[in-house]
Amino acid sequence: MTPRQDPSSRARGRGQRPPMTGQLHGIPLDRASGAPPLYAQIRDSVRSAVLTGALAPGMRLPPERELATSLGVNRTTTMRAYHELAADGVVEARPGRGTVVRSSRERTHDDTAAGGTPPHMGRMPSAAWLLGLRAVGQGLGPDPSLLRDIMALGTRDDVISFAGGTPTGEVIPFDAVQAALAEALTRTGADGLTYGPVEGLGSLRHTLAAHMRRRSAPVTADEIMVLSGATQGLALVAQALVEPGDEVVVEAPTYVGIVQTFGAAGARLIGVPVDAEGLRVDALAHVLARRRVRLIVVQPTVHNPTGATLSHARRERLVALARRHGVPILEDTPYAELWADGPEPPPLLALDRDGLVLHLGSFSKTIAPGLRVGWLAGPAPVIARLALAKQFSDLNTGALPQLVVERLLVSGVYDRHLTHVRAIYEERRAALCAELRGAASVLEVSPDPGGGFYLWLRLRRGRGRLLAAEARKVGVALLPGEAFYPASTIGGEDGGDRIRLSVASVTPAAIAEGMRRLLPFLDTMADPSPGGRDEGLRPVI
Amino acid sequence: MTPRQDPSSRARGRGQRPPMTGQLHGIPLDRASGAPPLYAQIRDSVRSAVLTGALAPGMRLPPERELATSLGVNRTTTMRAYHELAADGVVEARPGRGTVVRSSRERTHDDTAAGGTPPHMGRMPSAAWLLGLRAVGQGLGPDPSLLRDIMALGTRDDVISFAGGTPTGEVIPFDAVQAALAEALTRTGADGLTYGPVEGLGSLRHTLAAHMRRRSAPVTADEIMVLSGATQGLALVAQALVEPGDEVVVEAPTYVGIVQTFGAAGARLIGVPVDAEGLRVDALAHVLARRRVRLIVVQPTVHNPTGATLSHARRERLVALARRHGVPILEDTPYAELWADGPEPPPLLALDRDGLVLHLGSFSKTIAPGLRVGWLAGPAPVIARLALAKQFSDLNTGALPQLVVERLLVSGVYDRHLTHVRAIYEERRAALCAELRGAASVLEVSPDPGGGFYLWLRLRRGRGRLLAAEARKVGVALLPGEAFYPASTIGGEDGGDRIRLSVASVTPAAIAEGMRRLLPFLDTMADPSPGGRDEGLRPVI
Repeated sequence: MTPRQDPSSRARGRGQRPPMTGQLHGIPLDRASGAPPLYAQIRDSVRSAVLTGALAPGMRLPPERELATSLGVNRTTTMRAYHELAADGVVEARPGRGTVVRSSRERTHDDTAAGGTPPHMGRMPSAAWLLGLRAVGQGLGPDPSLLRDIMALGTRDDVISFAGGTPTGEVIPFDAVQAALAEALTRTGADGLTYGPVEGLGSLRHTLAAHMRRRSAPVTADEIMVLSGATQGLALVAQALVEPGDEVVVEAPTYVGIVQTFGAAGARLIGVPVDAEGLRVDALAHVLARRRVRLIVVQPTVHNPTGATLSHARRERLVALARRHGVPILEDTPYAELWADGPEPPPLLALDRDGLVLHLGSFSKTIAPGLRVGWLAGPAPVIARLALAKQFSDLNTGALPQLVVERLLVSGVYDRHLTHVRAIYEERRAALCAELRGAASVLEVSPDPGGGFYLWLRLRRGRGRLLAAEARKVGVALLPGEAFYPASTIGGEDGGDRIRLSVASVTPAAIAEGMRRLLPFLDTMADPSPGGRDEGLRPVI
Repeated sequence: MTPRQDPSSRARGRGQRPPMTGQLHGIPLDRASGAPPLYAQIRDSVRSAVLTGALAPGMRLPPERELATSLGVNRTTTMRAYHELAADGVVEARPGRGTVVRSSRERTHDDTAAGGTPPHMGRMPSAAWLLGLRAVGQGLGPDPSLLRDIMALGTRDDVISFAGGTPTGEVIPFDAVQAALAEALTRTGADGLTYGPVEGLGSLRHTLAAHMRRRSAPVTADEIMVLSGATQGLALVAQALVEPGDEVVVEAPTYVGIVQTFGAAGARLIGVPVDAEGLRVDALAHVLARRRVRLIVVQPTVHNPTGATLSHARRERLVALARRHGVPILEDTPYAELWADGPEPPPLLALDRDGLVLHLGSFSKTIAPGLRVGWLAGPAPVIARLALAKQFSDLNTGALPQLVVERLLVSGVYDRHLTHVRAIYEERRAALCAELRGAASVLEVSPDPGGGFYLWLRLRRGRGRLLAAEARKVGVALLPGEAFYPASTIGGEDGGDRIRLSVASVTPAAIAEGMRRLLPFLDTMADPSPGGRDEGLRPVI
């Protein structure tokens, strides 16, 4: 441990309260002659901290004078920065509270959101939390509260939601889960409520290894780790493998959570385009030849949001490229078992001869999200290292949901349920495609992807973000395409003219009603005027 | 994104396989004249990577020649480094596999551990994972696989375990949990198996806020976040608040998981001593006056491992110190509700007027570890920021265990169960103290701590680590005191002459039998010869 300068004495020397001073090192200022004005640097630092979540709604900024002294700038500089932040709606001056960060809901002037009252403020956090809380990450793509807002919207009874990827109602095998849970608890007694192995129950690891072998991937139990949901797998790999600044290839578009989780770990995300056959492996080859990529994250089968499934030729080429450049692959497969268009293509793990592929699986889309069970499969030493990261994250996954999954897999209930839900989603996708045919003049509908929840549509005119905002006014939720893009994409596509529609939680009747509400708006869509006062803020839908 | 040098062309220039080269930047060499010899630097880097988990057992080191070329050193340098690593038992040469990292079990020559066969190796991980996997962290204290080994040992029928803090059997309210789970599932139907809010179910947040208010802390529902176990709270705070190199005060001794989780986040841990009244706040004052501390982590009530409870005067002083220096406090309270010696002292959160305290609670010790439910309470904006971190970690905690906890709290079952288990643990602690009285010549027994599972004992002669090793030979598990210390401690105490005995999962009969096995060894304890061939390796017990 290196002794550091005493912050309190240094602070007293400047005549300030010590706590604030110690936390203000977070704003670096560039005083070189060509640099932007100092007020703009301060404004942009605060704005960035708000957008990335380092400064949460309700947090208090330091007083202008104090910040000026601390940064060694004129008070007019901090005044101007705060003034512009207030004009942009990022912060506001509140009587008796000082300058406070506004919530994203307040910032986006969302007139259909429930309630208009300011959030309960409770106790104010100390300034010591203020700039000390780390940013969630740069280049996160959508507003980091996006996923939570999707979930909230999906629970409103008056909304028909094409937004979320959440199975509900008839597509959840409730009776089987209920029976398996009761059976597990009776069998284990109190032992089922104690700690278990970090890597998961041995019996489930064996069952999952057999499950992977049936899908052509030769895996043993010690090459499996059970997760508290697949999101944990993304987080563990990001924590264990990615240093801030490392370059990580993701698909563009891709699952919001991939952008967020790797972005939060400090990765620089390189978006490689996806077409109807999945990841553009030719574009990836160019990236790998020119950059030092730390990891490739890909959803090879029933990709979110496009529904695309990587062709077999591309799978071979992707694995060969990874081998040539020595870059590991994380294949994320939450929807792979919802593939309904013939036999499921082999996972990349099945093609891997070099120990380069980690396979991430989930039961959230195939059984139920609330079980919180997923798994990782890959080389045993890598699994062992990731198990340490899991130990430090949540110690272990509860035994009961693991036993439920095991029971469903072993009994054959899981396979029968897959057959059942594949047909349901196929029917729903067909119903949605039929409804959309009437809008062919304004919408370009991709072919049925052959599995999963999602249709990925291009608007012939207008912007997805505006359509999403209009849709909310008539009680329809959908996601604008731009939510699925990392900040930097090869080719520059940003999905602004796309939307994603999900059939995860809508019956054919709800689909018809939702489209009855939505389609009239499509004809009125027009290109927005470029720019606008909310430019730079990300959509919250 | 900054373009980087093309690693493959650089690698080809040196005549090597590209994948390996790209990953070897992990060993920085200091070629200054006063620096240690290069072979020693390489040896120590690899050793450190193994101890911290960056190199997992079974992983292959690069061939000596390749590493030499890559680092720009003579081959004799890498040969000597590998030779010494092999002599230390850190790695071994395996025919056809090259030089491979040994497991900690192999390294510690543990003759009582189950099985002596090498672990199944499965597919070898690609070299791309090799040095790319980040170290778990420096200064982790005990071997990072320690917790898992504790759990494994505790499950062996022939072992009487005083090691783990795992409630089992009669101290788990199994019937109540079973009934609450069945009731919850019947009531929610499939809705109980979908995604829920990241921060936890609103009803449970309200219930937990009321629970905190009963414990004198004025908390509202939006100041509560539900966790997938309290370990997740440690991890989220570490992720959100701690930058690598930040100084974090922990107690010395403290819970192993605190050392590991904050160590894994890259914190420099400063251990502040604990005495019979808890954290030595006078020593903390000196630290805060001299260093820029990012966070103070403390277990104020029924501290692990000492069982100490912070006096009321020290609580006041601790909060005042935190205020004066603007340093947040994380109070971790998994055992606080097992306090049985009069009314539970108010949590630090109840004394906080400055939004500086985050309160971390757990139901793992009071209901059951397998539910995986804990909670955080603190300023709403800080909770909101930590909820983002949780979203990126595991999306949300399953609804069913939350509903079980809520039911137990609201119905009064929880309070009755606490009364029940406090009496059980009191009886067990008394039984253990009585047994130990016969060993007073070799053991200095601290007074009954008044709550929880743990007795913290000083050996009058001999070392805790040696006693733990001897104890395993007769089927008794206990933890040496040194496992609970961070690498750097004010005052330099390292717990070498201490052991922790837990009554979490032993009945009075098992306590008697365990002591019958253990006490004969105490008389034979002697000081070890200083040093030894395993010096530098941490104990795995």
